[in-house]
Amino acid sequence: MTLQDHCPLCAADGGVPIWHGDKLRVIRAAEAGFPAFYRVVWNRHVAEFSDLSAADRSLCMEAVTVVERVLRERLSPTKINLAALGNMVAHLHWHVIARYDWDSHFPAAVWAPAQRPRDEAREAEIVHQLPEIDAALQQALGRWAA
Amino acid sequence: MTLQDHCPLCAADGGVPIWHGDKLRVIRAAEAGFPAFYRVVWNRHVAEFSDLSAADRSLCMEAVTVVERVLRERLSPTKINLAALGNMVAHLHWHVIARYDWDSHFPAAVWAPAQRPRDEAREAEIVHQLPEIDAALQQALGRWAA
Repeated sequence: MTLQDHCPLCAADGGVPIWHGDKLRVIRAAEAGFPAFYRVVWNRHVAEFSDLSAADRSLCMEAVTVVERVLRERLSPTKINLAALGNMVAHLHWHVIARYDWDSHFPAAVWAPAQRPRDEAREAEIVHQLPEIDAALQQALGRWAA
Repeated sequence: MTLQDHCPLCAADGGVPIWHGDKLRVIRAAEAGFPAFYRVVWNRHVAEFSDLSAADRSLCMEAVTVVERVLRERLSPTKINLAALGNMVAHLHWHVIARYDWDSHFPAAVWAPAQRPRDEAREAEIVHQLPEIDAALQQALGRWAA
């Protein structure tokens, strides 16, 4: 692992740790309004997806797929959003976000201005499920990596 | 190819056609302020990345990587942004966007509010290069698919 000075994803997990593998980890983010917001973080400091080897790109996207599938199975979201931006923190990480047609921003991106007030009751229903979802992610990622 | 009624990416290319393969195509988008904005569009109508087979996911992301690499080589952007959102058009497409620290939104996402006015002179320098970049993409994607 190459540690870069001042890189928050070299210095710390970057969120609630869910699963840790040799090459990548999965964390749960705390982004207001989007309770089912996970990130697949590449452990080594690379900026761009194409900095990875073909084998590592495949590994990375298969981890993203495992997370996406657990969120779909457990939460039946309106849509999954995937993104690797890295403009703020140029250490490769994939956002995997369960979106709902009732969420504060839908159908806009989570980075866009809100479209409506947050629905705290519906958010709380998802928050209530997070321990089970975290456990399902740990199981699915463990099976996948085995 | 499954055609879905009212899906704009089933009905049309979705932008300036750059390259067309059996399973996917690459188009150049027209998004104000971001001249080097391409999309890898899956030809068949699927909503989510995890709806694809493992082989198709790999194919899809390798095409994204080809596009990313051409943009990096030709434009040396500050950052590449990759995203598959699909909240508006739930037909799998990957945004591949060359971002610059001088662009109107950096370091925010292109979907966020602008951070500063557009720099039309610098945008024009990129627009001037688009014919060469489009040709480089066609060559690189052709070689990749061969």
